Amino acid sequence: MANSKASVPKGTRDFSPAEMVKRNYIFDTIKSVFRKYGYLEIQTPSMENLSTLTGKYGDEGDKLIFKILNSGDFWGEAENKKQKAESFEFNSKGLLPMLSEKALRYDLTVPFARYVVMHQNEITFPFKRFQVQPVWRADRPQKGRYREFYQCDADMVGSESLLNEAEFVMIYQEALGMLGLKDFTIKINNRKILSGIAEIIGKPELIVDMTVAIDKLDKIGLDGVVKELLERGFTSRDIEKLKPVILSEGSNEEKLASLKSVLTTSDTGLKGIEEIETILGYLESFSVYSPQSLSSDSLSAGIQQPATQNPSAAPGSQSATLNLQLDITLARGLNYYTGAIFEVKTNEVAMGSIGGGGRYDDLTGMFGLKGLTGAGISFGADRIYDVMEELQLFPESTSETTKVLITNFDAQAERYALPVLQELRNKGISAELYPTSAKMKKQLSYADNKKIPYVILIGSEEIQSGRLTLKDMKSGVQEQLTREELTGKIK
Amino acid sequence: MANSKASVPKGTRDFSPAEMVKRNYIFDTIKSVFRKYGYLEIQTPSMENLSTLTGKYGDEGDKLIFKILNSGDFWGEAENKKQKAESFEFNSKGLLPMLSEKALRYDLTVPFARYVVMHQNEITFPFKRFQVQPVWRADRPQKGRYREFYQCDADMVGSESLLNEAEFVMIYQEALGMLGLKDFTIKINNRKILSGIAEIIGKPELIVDMTVAIDKLDKIGLDGVVKELLERGFTSRDIEKLKPVILSEGSNEEKLASLKSVLTTSDTGLKGIEEIETILGYLESFSVYSPQSLSSDSLSAGIQQPATQNPSAAPGSQSATLNLQLDITLARGLNYYTGAIFEVKTNEVAMGSIGGGGRYDDLTGMFGLKGLTGAGISFGADRIYDVMEELQLFPESTSETTKVLITNFDAQAERYALPVLQELRNKGISAELYPTSAKMKKQLSYADNKKIPYVILIGSEEIQSGRLTLKDMKSGVQEQLTREELTGKIK
Repeated sequence: MANSKASVPKGTRDFSPAEMVKRNYIFDTIKSVFRKYGYLEIQTPSMENLSTLTGKYGDEGDKLIFKILNSGDFWGEAENKKQKAESFEFNSKGLLPMLSEKALRYDLTVPFARYVVMHQNEITFPFKRFQVQPVWRADRPQKGRYREFYQCDADMVGSESLLNEAEFVMIYQEALGMLGLKDFTIKINNRKILSGIAEIIGKPELIVDMTVAIDKLDKIGLDGVVKELLERGFTSRDIEKLKPVILSEGSNEEKLASLKSVLTTSDTGLKGIEEIETILGYLESFSVYSPQSLSSDSLSAGIQQPATQNPSAAPGSQSATLNLQLDITLARGLNYYTGAIFEVKTNEVAMGSIGGGGRYDDLTGMFGLKGLTGAGISFGADRIYDVMEELQLFPESTSETTKVLITNFDAQAERYALPVLQELRNKGISAELYPTSAKMKKQLSYADNKKIPYVILIGSEEIQSGRLTLKDMKSGVQEQLTREELTGKIK
Repeated sequence: MANSKASVPKGTRDFSPAEMVKRNYIFDTIKSVFRKYGYLEIQTPSMENLSTLTGKYGDEGDKLIFKILNSGDFWGEAENKKQKAESFEFNSKGLLPMLSEKALRYDLTVPFARYVVMHQNEITFPFKRFQVQPVWRADRPQKGRYREFYQCDADMVGSESLLNEAEFVMIYQEALGMLGLKDFTIKINNRKILSGIAEIIGKPELIVDMTVAIDKLDKIGLDGVVKELLERGFTSRDIEKLKPVILSEGSNEEKLASLKSVLTTSDTGLKGIEEIETILGYLESFSVYSPQSLSSDSLSAGIQQPATQNPSAAPGSQSATLNLQLDITLARGLNYYTGAIFEVKTNEVAMGSIGGGGRYDDLTGMFGLKGLTGAGISFGADRIYDVMEELQLFPESTSETTKVLITNFDAQAERYALPVLQELRNKGISAELYPTSAKMKKQLSYADNKKIPYVILIGSEEIQSGRLTLKDMKSGVQEQLTREELTGKIK
């Protein structure tokens, strides 16, 4: 019992100062890029009415929603007075409404849709918002899967323009580049192309089955996909039609050209191709993408090809190179997305997707506001953290760390130190005086553990000469400096 | 039902972009000051084990803890297997352990104590941490009282030095000054002085009753306090001894002198006085406080006195002036604090306390780690927000707002605009292109609503001349500028 008192619920985590510095570095970087593209922050409450959340995530999702017990006696707050009076059966369905009317948010998307509907008269559309807040899921905890974790989303509602999609690609590129990732692939697909393919095969009703199967190409290979397609109601003949499409190689332009020839009779399919081309066109105008006819899909083909002058042809060669790949097998969240679909993967570390998103045409419909199109992306902050840790991309010290510790030798030195401390802080430098005259070893190890880069030593000699000793903790070098020299040096 | 779907639970709030900009301004300012003084951020999970929280906030507090329903079937996660098998009685005590084992945090202090005990082997003491996270209380919602609100705490554990207390005064002074507050009072008291007074009266066992009563002096006046003291077991004779102490006027130094003469026979009382003097001594060494013998307590005496050369004698005359007042009636959270007690009040707006804190000698004892002293302060962010709103202290635009909107005249102008947009963003300027060629009025009102200070107009004339029109949204002034001039101007 004593032990359980100093523990956290399973699937939840404390974040130490060192971890917070790194997490803030990720969040602050991504937020700054969101802002640069005109996205503004909102926050929604941690708890939503249970009725807002249930039925939005499927049966499996509903089970993973953390419900909050009504406070007071269990009947105290039930808004349906009639229900209170009724006798109840003790099973989860009969009891639940009396026990719980609120729940912790499961994602940021449904609360955002609720926000837009609730505040529609105050909002100027197109509304570009970002949101970085924790979400909670009663999932079985396991490595890398938590019951409380942060989501990091940017969404736009109210504009059909594909400029939004192009900018999402740029936001990924810029934010991940700023974080130091050098080799990552932004995959793009379009729901309308997938619909077109299902149409051409003559099985439009099986589009979900088709995409669920081909989405697994990376994991289970072509044979696995074929097996699954057969199980899901496709014939061998259908599959023969599908094969060249899902196995198509080459640059985005080559893939688009071959898709165009396949989808000639599907208006929906051609619309999807046109949307991809428009997005690529925007990126070209922004000078971050160049079309090409050479095969650039070297990674999935397993062949390293020589770098060309073309910036999009040399994946990973520079942090500034956009590696955008049309991937017909990409289908994440198909039931949700109606246009573009995005996914981001790092090629430097074995890791699932570190971001994803797309266009959804009727986000707010679930709350009764029809006809408002939206598009959004998400960053997988926990996975990005793990990638950066593995690649050692976190900066050694940041503005969040204390810059200088003044050691405390004795009462006289302490008194002498106080105005020095004040002067440093007045110059905007984070500074501490060790609060007692503990052993010097202890004080230096305090600086070391807190990753404080500089230590000022003040003893009787320093007080007499008026020059302070500055120790660089990394190099170990000590210098005697005047107070003016000191602040200049540290800044 | 449709309505309830687009609503939030009572006592909770959405924060719009405009509100978030202001909230971030407050939090970022306070965090930057915490960091300057060597405090580092941590975060703890939103949910704690119920056993961590219960019994820490008194019976009333326990009732206000939001409990989380066990997921799956109600018995699914109960850790006490025996309990699961037992039959249950349907009452809150019998049922609760099976229904709920987790709860939302009620404050940041208990989770911090749990954190320190749990991570004691990784922590370098003294440990200076700050934490800015929401807390949840099942309080009856009312104006200014929410069921989810942010706390903003800095605490230090493991150092007895009163330098920590002195720095808390400076943190309040600096953070509130940076936020633009000009006239606020930092009140200081010491639990040991209160103990000493109860001792001198001969009723040490009634210390809580005494302090609860005199704490109300501001609200119910002297007569009210006398009445309450009589009800709480003090005699008229006790009260006659108490009166001069609680009504003592004058500067901090005058009050300390008169207290010293009253408390001569109380070692505890004299220790309390000494602690206050040490804290004032530190502040004097930092050059932010000057002792004085004149009466500075002009506000509570209701007399405006002329400003003197003494910086602490002229409350509110300058933002840089420290207005620190010893207030013997200050007793907040007495059962908790063992040394210094702080409270901050603004004098510009009628509002409760906007901050408070103090020294507590055994914070981690509740989790079995004895003998670790601590001290901490808290900022009341919601109240500070309201004060700043009323005094119009929020800056008009911040780095969080989009700096420039490029209007979208037609397809040709859009294409022309894209490299301009890219150039602005490459220079670190937050910029947007309106995503469609909507009516100009609509585009300008978008800029207006988002408080975007600059708009770039691109039409056929601009494309021909290569000079862009920049409109200053505040002054309405339009200028024709080259692209180079433009970025310089906006930056």
